[in-house]
Amino acid sequence: MSVANVGKRPSEKAGAIPVAVLGATGAVGQRFIQLLEAHPWFRVGAVAASERSAGKPYTQACGWKLATPIPEAVEDLVVRPLDPSKLGRDDIRLAFSALPADIARGVEPDFVRAGFVVSSNASAFRFEPDVPIILPDVNPGHLSLLETQRRTRSWPGALITNPNCTTSGIALTLKPLQEEFGLRRVVVSTMQAISGAGYPGIPSLDILGNVVPWIPSEEEKIEKEPTLLLGTIKDGQQTPAAYTIAAHANRVPVLDGHTICMSIGFERDNVSPEDVFEALESFRGPGVIAGLPSAPRPPIRVLSEPDRPQPRLDCDSQAGMQISVGRIRTCPILDVRLVSVVHNTVRGAAGGSILNAELLSHEGWLG
Amino acid sequence: MSVANVGKRPSEKAGAIPVAVLGATGAVGQRFIQLLEAHPWFRVGAVAASERSAGKPYTQACGWKLATPIPEAVEDLVVRPLDPSKLGRDDIRLAFSALPADIARGVEPDFVRAGFVVSSNASAFRFEPDVPIILPDVNPGHLSLLETQRRTRSWPGALITNPNCTTSGIALTLKPLQEEFGLRRVVVSTMQAISGAGYPGIPSLDILGNVVPWIPSEEEKIEKEPTLLLGTIKDGQQTPAAYTIAAHANRVPVLDGHTICMSIGFERDNVSPEDVFEALESFRGPGVIAGLPSAPRPPIRVLSEPDRPQPRLDCDSQAGMQISVGRIRTCPILDVRLVSVVHNTVRGAAGGSILNAELLSHEGWLG
Amino acid sequence: MSVANVGKRPSEKAGAIPVAVLGATGAVGQRFIQLLEAHPWFRVGAVAASERSAGKPYTQACGWKLATPIPEAVEDLVVRPLDPSKLGRDDIRLAFSALPADIARGVEPDFVRAGFVVSSNASAFRFEPDVPIILPDVNPGHLSLLETQRRTRSWPGALITNPNCTTSGIALTLKPLQEEFGLRRVVVSTMQAISGAGYPGIPSLDILGNVVPWIPSEEEKIEKEPTLLLGTIKDGQQTPAAYTIAAHANRVPVLDGHTICMSIGFERDNVSPEDVFEALESFRGPGVIAGLPSAPRPPIRVLSEPDRPQPRLDCDSQAGMQISVGRIRTCPILDVRLVSVVHNTVRGAAGGSILNAELLSHEGWLG
Amino acid sequence: MSVANVGKRPSEKAGAIPVAVLGATGAVGQRFIQLLEAHPWFRVGAVAASERSAGKPYTQACGWKLATPIPEAVEDLVVRPLDPSKLGRDDIRLAFSALPADIARGVEPDFVRAGFVVSSNASAFRFEPDVPIILPDVNPGHLSLLETQRRTRSWPGALITNPNCTTSGIALTLKPLQEEFGLRRVVVSTMQAISGAGYPGIPSLDILGNVVPWIPSEEEKIEKEPTLLLGTIKDGQQTPAAYTIAAHANRVPVLDGHTICMSIGFERDNVSPEDVFEALESFRGPGVIAGLPSAPRPPIRVLSEPDRPQPRLDCDSQAGMQISVGRIRTCPILDVRLVSVVHNTVRGAAGGSILNAELLSHEGWLG
Repeated sequence: MSVANVGKRPSEKAGAIPVAVLGATGAVGQRFIQLLEAHPWFRVGAVAASERSAGKPYTQACGWKLATPIPEAVEDLVVRPLDPSKLGRDDIRLAFSALPADIARGVEPDFVRAGFVVSSNASAFRFEPDVPIILPDVNPGHLSLLETQRRTRSWPGALITNPNCTTSGIALTLKPLQEEFGLRRVVVSTMQAISGAGYPGIPSLDILGNVVPWIPSEEEKIEKEPTLLLGTIKDGQQTPAAYTIAAHANRVPVLDGHTICMSIGFERDNVSPEDVFEALESFRGPGVIAGLPSAPRPPIRVLSEPDRPQPRLDCDSQAGMQISVGRIRTCPILDVRLVSVVHNTVRGAAGGSILNAELLSHEGWLG
Repeated sequence: MSVANVGKRPSEKAGAIPVAVLGATGAVGQRFIQLLEAHPWFRVGAVAASERSAGKPYTQACGWKLATPIPEAVEDLVVRPLDPSKLGRDDIRLAFSALPADIARGVEPDFVRAGFVVSSNASAFRFEPDVPIILPDVNPGHLSLLETQRRTRSWPGALITNPNCTTSGIALTLKPLQEEFGLRRVVVSTMQAISGAGYPGIPSLDILGNVVPWIPSEEEKIEKEPTLLLGTIKDGQQTPAAYTIAAHANRVPVLDGHTICMSIGFERDNVSPEDVFEALESFRGPGVIAGLPSAPRPPIRVLSEPDRPQPRLDCDSQAGMQISVGRIRTCPILDVRLVSVVHNTVRGAAGGSILNAELLSHEGWLG
Repeated sequence: MSVANVGKRPSEKAGAIPVAVLGATGAVGQRFIQLLEAHPWFRVGAVAASERSAGKPYTQACGWKLATPIPEAVEDLVVRPLDPSKLGRDDIRLAFSALPADIARGVEPDFVRAGFVVSSNASAFRFEPDVPIILPDVNPGHLSLLETQRRTRSWPGALITNPNCTTSGIALTLKPLQEEFGLRRVVVSTMQAISGAGYPGIPSLDILGNVVPWIPSEEEKIEKEPTLLLGTIKDGQQTPAAYTIAAHANRVPVLDGHTICMSIGFERDNVSPEDVFEALESFRGPGVIAGLPSAPRPPIRVLSEPDRPQPRLDCDSQAGMQISVGRIRTCPILDVRLVSVVHNTVRGAAGGSILNAELLSHEGWLG
Repeated sequence: MSVANVGKRPSEKAGAIPVAVLGATGAVGQRFIQLLEAHPWFRVGAVAASERSAGKPYTQACGWKLATPIPEAVEDLVVRPLDPSKLGRDDIRLAFSALPADIARGVEPDFVRAGFVVSSNASAFRFEPDVPIILPDVNPGHLSLLETQRRTRSWPGALITNPNCTTSGIALTLKPLQEEFGLRRVVVSTMQAISGAGYPGIPSLDILGNVVPWIPSEEEKIEKEPTLLLGTIKDGQQTPAAYTIAAHANRVPVLDGHTICMSIGFERDNVSPEDVFEALESFRGPGVIAGLPSAPRPPIRVLSEPDRPQPRLDCDSQAGMQISVGRIRTCPILDVRLVSVVHNTVRGAAGGSILNAELLSHEGWLG
């Protein structure tokens, strides 16, 4: 898709586009429902979930855990099975996937084969060479990988993904630094919120007043995904960026908001904390995000207070879509140290998928 | 002092040595009182604190915050002022200091000049060239710096310190690795318990369900103290070890127990996680600790479970004196990654000072 | 004041009324600033605080602790001293007081004597016979006590208060039940959020993973204030309602939202849980609240789920102004048991004062 | 059984009695293992659990969650199925049951029929007319109900239970008050620790920074069990005590220790808080407990500090077996108010069952 498609994006005045939410009853699914309530372009037309929930009204099927009420328009929707032919209406072509990875692996291709464009938060296909992992303020051009996907798989629909919650914070922080200084090495240590594990997720006996210094498969994702997001696409093929990440992933008793400590080594010599501050502060992202209603403006907020960012105070910035960076200072081993906070279930999950769908729409992929 | 003095250590059979606790009413002071209750060599003979508390019975003066009751022998002691001539008895020559740094700076020298041996948890004098920072299982030989101290200052008594709570965990973890492989670089990220900030310390509004990615002056201590502890003494002078530490210090909602993520680069090539596991597992510390009742045996517990150590489950190991290390694995940037947990107010504070006093006694410094 | 004044309320179209916030830098003061940002009638014209803060820009003077940013219009306001002649502008006649009780006792009368209408959250004057404690959806008619106040004290301004945070939840819950069934006895047990104690407030060492079964002076307020709110005014004098409250006040590790368990005995016989459900569900409050922009509609949300209300999920209902009631069931000792949740710093503090000022404006008291 | 059996209790000098722990891998099962490690009379001879765990070494089968290490003697025991014929040894006649109620209902009778004496923490049989619910410091005489049980059921073994964790705190608090003043009505409001729900138990997303005002079936138990414990046995039949309890049961983010607020109305007139203080303070329990090694001495600790008891500071009193009571004050509706704290998984679960087994042994029921 190209800039030529810009004119085709749906008018905000016209009726909103009906969408399906797959895995709508879980923790991330509920975030989709919440964030889509007042969305200017999309509205929830169908909710789908596992057999256990299918057939029940949404209100009954989900144990709603968010502090805002279930949107009225969704309360009485009957939960549908995870089958593209059983959503109960024919006018839906866009589906958001909040499915667990193992279920997504089977279900998402079914929907794409049935012609759906699927904007997925699941990790199931993130490492397929023809499935783009996208943050619109980082690598919107990677959308071109969909052409490879369509050619290779003969899928009538399309599948894109957003990165892991922690990767979202890392890649956004690193993007302007890569552009300005080049990246060589990043040592990352995370303190991740319990909402990242879904529901029921972490037992309270494990995490109350405690730290668990291990999150299964998380370090592997954190070390790979950001190199894809900051990598290049050429001739329909991805090349990861040539820098190395080492990650320590920890779970802490925080509700929402991942906190990420980074020590960063650059290609350019003598990069100072002031240089980094300036690069982050002046970052505006690619021009295309100006047309996306959920895109934060700017994508990154830079804080000067010595004790910020903090997840409880900062993760809701710009409705949870803007990341916050602070404590920018020299690193005695690499070059610069800093701390980022990202809202893990908004920017790092449901909000990220919605922003991707806005990009798809803007670029003409929703037909 | 030299090995020749070993024979002079006090008999465990004879009456216990009376000691004073300076700053006895605060959070660390309470730990001293608790840990000394059943101590085989020492017993609390006097408690001293600021003017505000002086004159009151201990029970009234301290808002006791520990889950075990105030020891009976201390309940009715009258709190004395921080003046060596006003402790109310003449037979005390050993004082533990739980004072805040700014007060310790004035008070500790008063006691040493009055002939006291002061085993201090305060940071006030840690960076003086003639004041040893000691972990008996790491650098007991640094006690020889006391001879420099005595020569330089003409103090009739002596002053030694234990390191910062986090440093205790770092230096103990690194000691066997330094011996086996040599150290070059260590990137550290900590998740520190609220008890490390004393009482009242951190307001609950700041830390409940939150992370604060900043602890004033902490990173500076973490980056310097471990190089002193693993350094050498020659001709009465300390030389820090030649490796570099970069630290990210964070406060998390945990009661007791600091969790420390480390990425470590060695001098020796090709050090594997298995090598590190073996070095830590087989570490027994210097022989002298066999004679110290509070010394953990061995100093380090190595865990194999993928999700350990955790502060709530592991910080009490061997009454809080043993550190726990786990998650030993390859680091894509440096050589090996691991996680340590240390009980910050026991091993990292009051228990550390008591262990140091045991060393002093064992080495004949208590006369 | 009477219904005849309704016509005089300020036009929502005209410029908003400038107001002062006294005690603007504290926890409740920050809530005032936050809630007034988008207020249709009022705008912050001055911020005042203790000498320590006076003279500084607001951003510097307050350690902002809320998850939304400091409103731009307030960021650079210079903090003024707590002196009505030093606010720096002459057009302000309405002041909100977020002062601690002991300071409010001296400062609030100064402002009233200088002609200000003061809507206070402080407890200092709540028990004066001529100072109304008001919840507009419970007892707006008590505003008539201001005539007594003006007569007795010759104050050119006026002083009204909102009740204690917990009382707000209790009195709102009991109002429709008093009307329908009459009240005799209420046994109350509270689980109160840490934000109720202000900042720095409760040390984290006291409350993390703990319950403190005592809040100084709280039970006294909870047992008296609701009888005043549900009492009557006749000939300018208050008569408390003739029912008895027994309270157990507890602090729990919750950020915002007080949870209140009540066992209620009625004057009428055979009141069933269904009767109570119906009375609460159908309650709309006095007609006057229809004209107040911050009034929740309806004032009470009744929940049927067996495990609700919960502070984290329910205290933000209708921007924190609506209380939530649930678990309505028979009591084996009194008649009916239930649980209420109220947002303690919104409905129970800053939001309550603002709603009171809306009532004052609506009733013509702002001139 | 009668006093005549006292002489027959097992000598503390002789070899300890081997016991089985049923449900040994769960949260309460782990407490049994922990508390039996240093028990003077009993030692763990077999561990049994569900099919999923059977056949594995204990260390592998249980995800150990306690802060002390797994006792060496148990580490390598192979977990047996819940079948009395498959424990792998013939010399065990005493079994502790930490089973969930639904499983206990089937399994416990199997063991009793096979000749075992079962001391159960499960609620499955608590309300059977011939199964005693015992707290040795409250109603040891109820053991006589076992004669009815044996007669009615022709069981070769015997089954006794300890009450629900919260009931343990309530019944112990009320026992001396019943004796002195008679009981009429008790309004109870609880704040219960997460460990009471077992593992995985409460999801952290439900309880972190929150209160859940509902615990399934808890209020029913709290309202019935204490009337049985304080009731009488005559002619082999229980008569509950004639007082009424109304309960509000809440879950709070506390690890261990239930906090219980009570308003109590007495039969005797004019009972003052001082009378209650005196009755609780002087309570020593029945004489038989002097012979039971796990019995706290005295059973109740009475605190005078205005803000105590607190679960984190007080639930470990006397190794978790002693309850703490404080805040004794007048109640405006009933007679006196107070607060109790009980360690829910020690005194209120595993420790209670062990104390009951000590009573059985002391009274000659272990043969």
